[in-house]
Amino acid sequence: MKNQIMLQTPPMGWNSYDYYDTTVNEDQIKANADYMAAHLKDFGWEYIVVDIQWYAYGAGTRRDKYQYIPFGKVEIDEYSRLIPCSERFPSSAGGNGFAPLAHYIHKLGLKFGIHIMRGIPRIAAHTHGKLMGTDKTANEIADPGSVCSWNPDMYGVIPGVEGAQEYYDSIIELYASWGVDFIKCDDICRMDVPSAKQEIVMLHKAIKKCGRPMVLSLSPGPALIHESWHYSTYANMWRITDDFWDDWKYLLPMFERCEIWQNHVSEGNYPDCDMLPVGMIGKGFGQERPTRFTREEQITMMSLWCMFRSPLMIGGELTLLDDWTLKLLTNKAVLKLLTDSEGARQLWRDDHHCLWLSHDKTDETQYLAVFNLSNEERPILIEADMAGLSSFCGLTLTELWTGKSKSLEEKDMSITLPGHGAAIYRYHP
Amino acid sequence: MKNQIMLQTPPMGWNSYDYYDTTVNEDQIKANADYMAAHLKDFGWEYIVVDIQWYAYGAGTRRDKYQYIPFGKVEIDEYSRLIPCSERFPSSAGGNGFAPLAHYIHKLGLKFGIHIMRGIPRIAAHTHGKLMGTDKTANEIADPGSVCSWNPDMYGVIPGVEGAQEYYDSIIELYASWGVDFIKCDDICRMDVPSAKQEIVMLHKAIKKCGRPMVLSLSPGPALIHESWHYSTYANMWRITDDFWDDWKYLLPMFERCEIWQNHVSEGNYPDCDMLPVGMIGKGFGQERPTRFTREEQITMMSLWCMFRSPLMIGGELTLLDDWTLKLLTNKAVLKLLTDSEGARQLWRDDHHCLWLSHDKTDETQYLAVFNLSNEERPILIEADMAGLSSFCGLTLTELWTGKSKSLEEKDMSITLPGHGAAIYRYHP
Amino acid sequence: MKNQIMLQTPPMGWNSYDYYDTTVNEDQIKANADYMAAHLKDFGWEYIVVDIQWYAYGAGTRRDKYQYIPFGKVEIDEYSRLIPCSERFPSSAGGNGFAPLAHYIHKLGLKFGIHIMRGIPRIAAHTHGKLMGTDKTANEIADPGSVCSWNPDMYGVIPGVEGAQEYYDSIIELYASWGVDFIKCDDICRMDVPSAKQEIVMLHKAIKKCGRPMVLSLSPGPALIHESWHYSTYANMWRITDDFWDDWKYLLPMFERCEIWQNHVSEGNYPDCDMLPVGMIGKGFGQERPTRFTREEQITMMSLWCMFRSPLMIGGELTLLDDWTLKLLTNKAVLKLLTDSEGARQLWRDDHHCLWLSHDKTDETQYLAVFNLSNEERPILIEADMAGLSSFCGLTLTELWTGKSKSLEEKDMSITLPGHGAAIYRYHP
Amino acid sequence: MKNQIMLQTPPMGWNSYDYYDTTVNEDQIKANADYMAAHLKDFGWEYIVVDIQWYAYGAGTRRDKYQYIPFGKVEIDEYSRLIPCSERFPSSAGGNGFAPLAHYIHKLGLKFGIHIMRGIPRIAAHTHGKLMGTDKTANEIADPGSVCSWNPDMYGVIPGVEGAQEYYDSIIELYASWGVDFIKCDDICRMDVPSAKQEIVMLHKAIKKCGRPMVLSLSPGPALIHESWHYSTYANMWRITDDFWDDWKYLLPMFERCEIWQNHVSEGNYPDCDMLPVGMIGKGFGQERPTRFTREEQITMMSLWCMFRSPLMIGGELTLLDDWTLKLLTNKAVLKLLTDSEGARQLWRDDHHCLWLSHDKTDETQYLAVFNLSNEERPILIEADMAGLSSFCGLTLTELWTGKSKSLEEKDMSITLPGHGAAIYRYHP
Repeated sequence: MKNQIMLQTPPMGWNSYDYYDTTVNEDQIKANADYMAAHLKDFGWEYIVVDIQWYAYGAGTRRDKYQYIPFGKVEIDEYSRLIPCSERFPSSAGGNGFAPLAHYIHKLGLKFGIHIMRGIPRIAAHTHGKLMGTDKTANEIADPGSVCSWNPDMYGVIPGVEGAQEYYDSIIELYASWGVDFIKCDDICRMDVPSAKQEIVMLHKAIKKCGRPMVLSLSPGPALIHESWHYSTYANMWRITDDFWDDWKYLLPMFERCEIWQNHVSEGNYPDCDMLPVGMIGKGFGQERPTRFTREEQITMMSLWCMFRSPLMIGGELTLLDDWTLKLLTNKAVLKLLTDSEGARQLWRDDHHCLWLSHDKTDETQYLAVFNLSNEERPILIEADMAGLSSFCGLTLTELWTGKSKSLEEKDMSITLPGHGAAIYRYHP
Repeated sequence: MKNQIMLQTPPMGWNSYDYYDTTVNEDQIKANADYMAAHLKDFGWEYIVVDIQWYAYGAGTRRDKYQYIPFGKVEIDEYSRLIPCSERFPSSAGGNGFAPLAHYIHKLGLKFGIHIMRGIPRIAAHTHGKLMGTDKTANEIADPGSVCSWNPDMYGVIPGVEGAQEYYDSIIELYASWGVDFIKCDDICRMDVPSAKQEIVMLHKAIKKCGRPMVLSLSPGPALIHESWHYSTYANMWRITDDFWDDWKYLLPMFERCEIWQNHVSEGNYPDCDMLPVGMIGKGFGQERPTRFTREEQITMMSLWCMFRSPLMIGGELTLLDDWTLKLLTNKAVLKLLTDSEGARQLWRDDHHCLWLSHDKTDETQYLAVFNLSNEERPILIEADMAGLSSFCGLTLTELWTGKSKSLEEKDMSITLPGHGAAIYRYHP
Repeated sequence: MKNQIMLQTPPMGWNSYDYYDTTVNEDQIKANADYMAAHLKDFGWEYIVVDIQWYAYGAGTRRDKYQYIPFGKVEIDEYSRLIPCSERFPSSAGGNGFAPLAHYIHKLGLKFGIHIMRGIPRIAAHTHGKLMGTDKTANEIADPGSVCSWNPDMYGVIPGVEGAQEYYDSIIELYASWGVDFIKCDDICRMDVPSAKQEIVMLHKAIKKCGRPMVLSLSPGPALIHESWHYSTYANMWRITDDFWDDWKYLLPMFERCEIWQNHVSEGNYPDCDMLPVGMIGKGFGQERPTRFTREEQITMMSLWCMFRSPLMIGGELTLLDDWTLKLLTNKAVLKLLTDSEGARQLWRDDHHCLWLSHDKTDETQYLAVFNLSNEERPILIEADMAGLSSFCGLTLTELWTGKSKSLEEKDMSITLPGHGAAIYRYHP
Repeated sequence: MKNQIMLQTPPMGWNSYDYYDTTVNEDQIKANADYMAAHLKDFGWEYIVVDIQWYAYGAGTRRDKYQYIPFGKVEIDEYSRLIPCSERFPSSAGGNGFAPLAHYIHKLGLKFGIHIMRGIPRIAAHTHGKLMGTDKTANEIADPGSVCSWNPDMYGVIPGVEGAQEYYDSIIELYASWGVDFIKCDDICRMDVPSAKQEIVMLHKAIKKCGRPMVLSLSPGPALIHESWHYSTYANMWRITDDFWDDWKYLLPMFERCEIWQNHVSEGNYPDCDMLPVGMIGKGFGQERPTRFTREEQITMMSLWCMFRSPLMIGGELTLLDDWTLKLLTNKAVLKLLTDSEGARQLWRDDHHCLWLSHDKTDETQYLAVFNLSNEERPILIEADMAGLSSFCGLTLTELWTGKSKSLEEKDMSITLPGHGAAIYRYHP
């Protein structure tokens, strides 16, 4: 039942949204891909994802009024399928779609992903557009009442009607022909409309059929915890939060979200904490800026995402990455959590601090992450039995961010962390 | 602030929906108007209302699957305004709109009403249709997220944007030019989307401007009781129930609805109990049938509607009215409640029976309505002090449905009613 | 069906809560009554109401932790009825109850009211206390699951069980024997528990039976608008807001609440805007203070309460009233609204200003109240047709707070009000 | 952080509720224990649990009106702790509590459990009862607003106040002194009141302190899936359904509940499907009867509970067990699922059938459970890849209920099951 690609580790990559919003173009995608190949690939980063409205003309030109221009012109093929706007993606002209861009990225040793919206273009429904592989037309499978609350482009597809699965098959087949490795489908994860649940299944079936392994990623969150079986059966990753941005008010609730979802991380199934708004972001939103997160907060974010084993998608523009951020993203000891750890679980959480524990599958070591959730520096006492130990005394702990080791001489462990700060300790228990 | 037409009594008329659904045509409208002029006009009945989708081609032809065919062809003028489908309304051809039909009805001494959906046609938004009296186009005033949950034709209009009021002005101006007297606007009363509240105000302003008195009727219900001020300030009637049909399960809850709204009936303001599904109904729905209401239930319905002073709109096909139903609808003593009574209030309601009291403005008489809400015949005791009397003894009461009078000899009054039955007594207190 | 006392005007009085919280004693009540008789009675003020926990020992002594001490000692008679704590009400000793205090107040020409909590004392249920007029005992009529969310003293009474009506009869009979004129029943208006609706009816029946006219006042709000019939049938006044205090954040929403309830004010039925927190308040709450309302806000409050015809209950300590506040409360022209006006309705409300209109039953004059809801001084234009006039030109308007008159020379009227300010104009239309 | 007893397998036992309601006595408990020791112990059954109101006089004597007599007499010690009613548990007289009964059960090689209600007896709060180990009294730790919606005995304890933890410590210490092995705490799992979440923690801490291993079981359900971390951190088992009874309408939804909770079963943590209403039940409820479940339904229930690894608590009277039911409860191949399987997950569920898969830790075998959820016999096709196999061909499958084996010759597996029936297949993949 699982998707053909059984992801053995959470996907790592870059996504155009946090920096470009709807405006990214081909050269910008290539520049980020080049950077990733040169500086990040060796650390496990591999996906380049083109986010929302690559099919829209004039995307971002009315940003004062609209994020998404309603009833704007979109590029569409004869089978009611959206294709790239050739004004921003010149290589797509002549029916090439994203194939040339995917090829470019594959040659760099990377993988290529695209964002899509649940459903079929509204304009196709109103013009009774043709569908591939069926006599039915777009108006017959589009649900006029199934609209996204924040994007005007699509109508949902009616589950079970003739032509519905054929339509989803036809878009996935097209993406496969382009060489797409990763599909981030939006307006579907939170199941805002009832049909979304079945549209996930249609996408899953289409991917199984298409013959090309593709990761299926669902947005936006928060995902519904009581639908965890559905997500894990039909998708690879699903957002457990609404859009995440660089403010502590978004980061703090992630501890609760990770607590809720901690038992649902497994091979091929990755609850998704959303993109990392680090480095330079916001340009397409009209406010290019360095992340508002403090360094401590960025360490806290990376520590939680990695302990939890969330997918990692960099939101900042790669070509503008500063040294400190690059180091944050290329700490091998930390990134090893994604590939080699398992069994992560929250040990404790109150208003002041939080503890997570996991272990490394490749040896006997444990990972103990400590988070200071308060605004001030504070000492934190970790009792040995909380970590399932009789005592910390005699253990040597290495902190992954600083690389420093220390031997403990007390039964319990006491550390001091700055406000919003974190540390991850590795040790042989 | 009130609409120009200050309705002194609740409107009385006929509406095409209950019998024809979306399919009614010009000849059928005329036949019903002819019947009304001949048999009903003298009793106060005067409105002939063309209900939903008079602008749609093929309306009703896919009734097995759809009540409203999604993305179907509609008749529309150069200013994004829906106009009658000339296949069903031949006299509207050549840009006449409903003017000839309205003229026909006016000549009979009757008034003409039409149904509209809140908003602007979706197809106009997608094709960037022109608007009258502004440079803006349909796509600039349509809200792509404001869709009706049960009809696919329109997008809501965004309050406050340039062109929005102009659009509503332009449609009302068109209707005024046709000679429309009554507008039933749908998808607006229940305020399912937030903008509906302001769209009511836009309609109100447009009607004030147009120079022709028009009744503004809002659907569907249940209206929101905490918005009563808004309805009464900007409209003439508003539905206090969802679609009402011929089943006791719909009739029984009307007693609670009337209780809730009893203090909001005043000159020009009529909470609306919805159409009377009497006689032959259901043809357009694929199930032509006589009403499923028993005669007792029909008397109960008419008694409640008239005591409460709801607008009265006949749902059944007039040309097929049987004698009994015609009498039900032409009882002058009962219909006098609409024109001459005031101050109606519920005295009592429990699971078994209900009492309402009002008085006649033209003399000193009172009206006491008694309803048996149970399924079986039962005696009902009405204590004199409930009706604000020291005693019923000595009073002569006339029952309005039977016309029979009796003098009471006891302090309290005791009557027996059949299950689901009603009686209305008139007396000088 | 209405209570025996048909209140022809909204009650006006003083209530101990805003100043004393739970701590008021006999001397304090008398001092306030003396003041009212001397300074306020001539203006229509007449009720002196002892608010919550007059039966509780040590009330207010644990104010750091509790407003109401849980499981504290209460004074109770042999029939499970709460009686006054003689430590605070010495004249009640020896089984006199509130009779001596009521007598004192009656001699001053005033009326006497008490606060009660819905239900029967918990301690009576746990000790199987006797009930008057029945063999049943308290445990048999108390509902162990029907508890007030904010006060620990009582259990709700189970509607329909033997002994329930007898219990309510017995307390009302006791209050009648004391000479109580006004009962404010708490934990009942908002119907937080389902039985509250029937407990209102039980109180109503008991009052009808007891032979003494008593006003029945229900708290706390907000009352449920869809239950308006129930309130108006079984009670005289009902709170339309939760506890009201001296902050604009509470005053502003009252405009919406009055809009909602405007059609439900009638003889004997007064939706209640709650006490007037003016003068010195807060002592029993540990924070004796002058009201935090500005003078403009107090004028706004009084204007709205009087236009709407809310009951008026002074919250501040009468013996400490300053001259300005005394004048605020004794403006005959304004208070005449309570007794002689009718038909008050909101004409307009937006974020900036609000208009209300009513008329005087005793002559042809109209009242037009204008409120500036914004924080800054602003000009406000009142179009003549809003007030149902063809023109203001030629009319002479008297402003009730200042007593100043002016003749208007324009069709529309333009005035300037300070932020949060109000004016009431009287004129012959 | 986990409880001291790390339950390696789900608890198996008998509970008095389904047969006795509140009425069970000492002899009846002993008789069931004797039966278990003689007939069930060898199959893993070991807990004997006394359910609700063992402290109440007259429990069950007013069953026509009350399940739990409000304000009835309860047995209580000097420290506000409930102790057994010696009328029903004679050996508890003289301050022995349940120690003699626990001793009797322990001698049989079984374990002893009791039911408790969250909180402290109401009567203790009202009489200001003493608490052990603190100067505080019951009224100081009881929350008068924290009441159970269906049982009148207790008030919740206020988290964080002095004396609160001491009270919970004192009851657990008492139970430990009696020899209690299992505590089923009611009115706590669903967190109907906010303090329940912290009362779970207080119970957990008390158990850790008391020095005796005890299972902590929480009721009633449905537990809140987003609080799974809290349950698993502080308790051993928690109800995932409200009270479960012998009707398909309760059994069918358990498939959804198990789907939701499947990832939260681990050593020491067992989401609880509730008691097995098999054999003779209902006597205390006034309707002694054989279970209404068909045999097929009982097999379905046992199959789901065992695949899921729910705790198993027999609800029927053991001394009345018929042969068929005894066999149902003593199928070693099925019960091995509880002790030796892991990784159970739903493969598929629709309206017609459901599939679960798990594997045996002790060898390489898999368990595949097939459920027919429809009312009629139907063929069910299980595709090999659903079970993670390339083909079923060549595999030998043993069905655990019948013990029959068969070799498959097709890639996919096709079986026929009766309506509401189930089968569990074991095979080497």
